[in-house]
Amino acid sequence: MDSILLLIMDGLGDRPDVRIDGKTVLQYAKTKNLDSFAKKGMNGIMDPIAPGIIPGSDTAHLSLLGYDPYKVYTGRGPFEAAGIGIKLKEGDVAFRCNFGTVNEKLVVKDRRAGRIKKGTKELAKMLDGIRIDDVKIIFEEAVEHRAALVLRGKNLSSNITDIDPHNDNMRINESRPLSKNAERTANILNKFVKESYKILNEHPINKERKKKKLPPANIILPRGAGIFPRMRSMDEKYKLKSACVAGISLVKGVSRLAGMDIINVKGATGGVDTDIDAKIKAVIKALEKYDFVLVNIKAPDLFGHDGDVFGKIKMAEKIDKALGPLKDVDCLKIFTADHSTPVTIRNHSGDPVPVTITGKNVRVDDVKNFDEISCAKGALCRIQGKDLMNIALDLTNRSEKFGA
Amino acid sequence: MDSILLLIMDGLGDRPDVRIDGKTVLQYAKTKNLDSFAKKGMNGIMDPIAPGIIPGSDTAHLSLLGYDPYKVYTGRGPFEAAGIGIKLKEGDVAFRCNFGTVNEKLVVKDRRAGRIKKGTKELAKMLDGIRIDDVKIIFEEAVEHRAALVLRGKNLSSNITDIDPHNDNMRINESRPLSKNAERTANILNKFVKESYKILNEHPINKERKKKKLPPANIILPRGAGIFPRMRSMDEKYKLKSACVAGISLVKGVSRLAGMDIINVKGATGGVDTDIDAKIKAVIKALEKYDFVLVNIKAPDLFGHDGDVFGKIKMAEKIDKALGPLKDVDCLKIFTADHSTPVTIRNHSGDPVPVTITGKNVRVDDVKNFDEISCAKGALCRIQGKDLMNIALDLTNRSEKFGA
Repeated sequence: MDSILLLIMDGLGDRPDVRIDGKTVLQYAKTKNLDSFAKKGMNGIMDPIAPGIIPGSDTAHLSLLGYDPYKVYTGRGPFEAAGIGIKLKEGDVAFRCNFGTVNEKLVVKDRRAGRIKKGTKELAKMLDGIRIDDVKIIFEEAVEHRAALVLRGKNLSSNITDIDPHNDNMRINESRPLSKNAERTANILNKFVKESYKILNEHPINKERKKKKLPPANIILPRGAGIFPRMRSMDEKYKLKSACVAGISLVKGVSRLAGMDIINVKGATGGVDTDIDAKIKAVIKALEKYDFVLVNIKAPDLFGHDGDVFGKIKMAEKIDKALGPLKDVDCLKIFTADHSTPVTIRNHSGDPVPVTITGKNVRVDDVKNFDEISCAKGALCRIQGKDLMNIALDLTNRSEKFGA
Repeated sequence: MDSILLLIMDGLGDRPDVRIDGKTVLQYAKTKNLDSFAKKGMNGIMDPIAPGIIPGSDTAHLSLLGYDPYKVYTGRGPFEAAGIGIKLKEGDVAFRCNFGTVNEKLVVKDRRAGRIKKGTKELAKMLDGIRIDDVKIIFEEAVEHRAALVLRGKNLSSNITDIDPHNDNMRINESRPLSKNAERTANILNKFVKESYKILNEHPINKERKKKKLPPANIILPRGAGIFPRMRSMDEKYKLKSACVAGISLVKGVSRLAGMDIINVKGATGGVDTDIDAKIKAVIKALEKYDFVLVNIKAPDLFGHDGDVFGKIKMAEKIDKALGPLKDVDCLKIFTADHSTPVTIRNHSGDPVPVTITGKNVRVDDVKNFDEISCAKGALCRIQGKDLMNIALDLTNRSEKFGA
C-alpha cells in the first residue's frame, strides 16, 4: 500500500490583492511544480474546519488529521507543552507561558523579558517540580522567552482566565474561574505565579541581568489554559505508522498528541530562513519507513501575518522549487494549506484553501494551476478538512467497507 | 467593516423547461446586472437546507440566517404571528388562521369567507383577549381572510392536528393531540373554535354579510401550530445590527423573531406588482445604518407557483433592472434565492440555487452568468445555507479565530 504524504504550506491561501492586479498570491506566483502536480492530480478546495470558520494552525491540523477540534481543543496549552516534549497525562491542565518582567507591584514592564535568550533553562529548573497545595508543577522552557506549564493533580479545570495581561504596563491579571468547578485551579495558578516572582526575582541570573540593565525574567505569565485531550493515536485510529516533520512546536505538539514520531531536521526552523530542501529530503526518507508523513512549512503564514505580498509570493516560489524531488517519489501526495492568511488582513481567514491530490488511484481532472480559483473547478469540488484522512485512506486502499 | 446585503429572489431557481429550449428561467432571461455581479464576484450553488430537501420560504430564510430550522421551526404559526406584529413569549403556541364560513353543522362552505376584505378587524377584537379555561387568547387579523391566533398559558404543546379541513364542504376537524402532553392544548383549541362560531355568527357584520348574500366570516380555522422558538437575535449571534425589507409577512415574521428591525416600504406588496425600485432604494439607505440588510423579493416564486414561465422570465428581468443602483454601493453583496420554484412543477423543489458574492475581499472566478449551471463552476462550489452567514462574517472580517 502506498504511503501518504500530507504537505501543509501554512497559511498559503489568500485573498485578491490590488498590488498584484487583484490576484491571490498563488494566482500570481510562478509555481511550476505545484502546477504540474495539479495537472497530474485531482483538485479541489477545502474548508479546514467549516465554511467561513477561521482556523488556528492547531485546530486546522487537528481537523486535517481527523480529530474534531471542537472536542479535543480546549486551549493551546497542551499542544505547546507536548510540542516542547512534555509528556502529558489525562487530567493535566497546561498553559503557554512567557518569562516576563514585572516591577514590585506586579505591573508588567516587558511581556517577553527582553526576548531573553540565555538562562531560562536554569530559571525553569527552579520552578519545575515544586508543589502548590496538592498540585505538582511541571515547567519547561522553550525558545527564547517562551515556556510551558503543566498543573498535575486531581479535579483540575482549564475553564479559567489568563494571568498574562497581553499588554505591557498593566498589572498581571488574577486568574478567574469561568465555572464553579474551576475555582481551585484558578487559585492554584494565582499562587504559582506569585511564587514564581518570589523565586525568580532573587535568582542570580536575574540579578546579573539587572546589573547589565537587561529586563529580568522575574515572573511567569501563563495563558491559553487547556486540559489534556483524550486523543487516539494515528496508529489506533487509522493503523498508520506516522511521522511529522515540522519546525514549529505547535505542530509538533499536535503530532505528538496524535502519537506520531517527530523527525527533527537540521535547519528546519519554522522561520522564513527554514531549510525547505532539507525538510523535503527528510520527508522522502521518512516515506520509506512510515505509512503517513505530515510536513508543515510555516513560512507562508509568517509573510501573510506581515502583509508582505511579494515576500509571500517569493516564499511560495521557493517552496515550489523545493518540491521538485517529490516528483520521483511514488506515494499518495496531498498538497494543501492549513488555512488562508491573506496579506491584505495580516491574519488568518475562513476562506477555503486549494488541495491537490496525486497518486496512482486518483481521478485526473483538467485543472492546470494550483490556486484557490483553478482548483475549485477540479474533481474534488469543495471538501472539509475532517474528510481528508478518509479520502487518503480510501485512495491508498486502506479503508474497510461499511456494509455488504 | 463593510455592511452585508443578502438579496433573496424568492423561488428564483428553476428546472429546464421545454418551452424555453430546455433551459432554466435564469439561463433564458436577459439579466445584465446579475451577470455583471457574477463576473465581478465569487459564484456557486447553494442548498438552502440540504441537498434534495425542499425548503419552505420560512425554513429557508431561517437556514440562510444561520438558524437550524430543524430546531427552531415547529410550525408556521409563530412566524405568521410575528409577521403581523404580535409579540410572542416563550411557551406561546401560535397558529395561522383563516376566517371561514360554516353552516350550523360546522361544515365549511368557504375556507376564505369570500376573501373578506372589510370587517375582520372588528371581528378579531371580539376574540382577542378572551380566556378558554386558564389560557389567554391573542387574536389578530391580517390581510383579507387571514389571521393569527396565539394561545398563552402554561404547559401548552404545538403537537396537535389542524382544525382547518383544507377543503370546502367538509366538516371542521377536531384538533387531535399527537402526543400525551398535547391533550390539553387540542382541547382548548377545539373549545376556542366552537366559541368563535358562537361569537362571530351572531355579529352584526356577519348578519349584514348574509343579508348581502356574502358568505359570513363566522368561524376561525386554525392550522400550522407551532411553539414560539427560542432564537438568539442576529445581534446576539453575530453582533450585527440587522434590518429586513420584505413584502410578505412570513419573511417579516422570521426577521422579527431574529430580532431584526423591519423596514416597511411603500409599494412593497409581496405581490407581482411590488415596487422593486422602491425596495432597492430603501435597502441602499438601510445599508448606511445597518450592518446587515436582508431583502426578499417574493414575485418570482408566485410565477413559479402559477407555472408561468414567461411571466417568471419577465419578472427576473424586471428585478435585474432594478438592481442597477446597487453597483455603486460599497458592501458585501450576496445575490441568491431561498429555494427553487420550478415552473414545470408549480411548487418548491429541492434543487440548489445560484449564489453570487461580490465585495472587496472576495476571490473572483471566471463565471460570467448568473444561473444554476454557470454558477456551479465558480470558486464557491456548492455550499449549504447554514454556512452563508459564516462566510459573510469572514469576508467582512468580523469572525474570530478558533485556535491559535
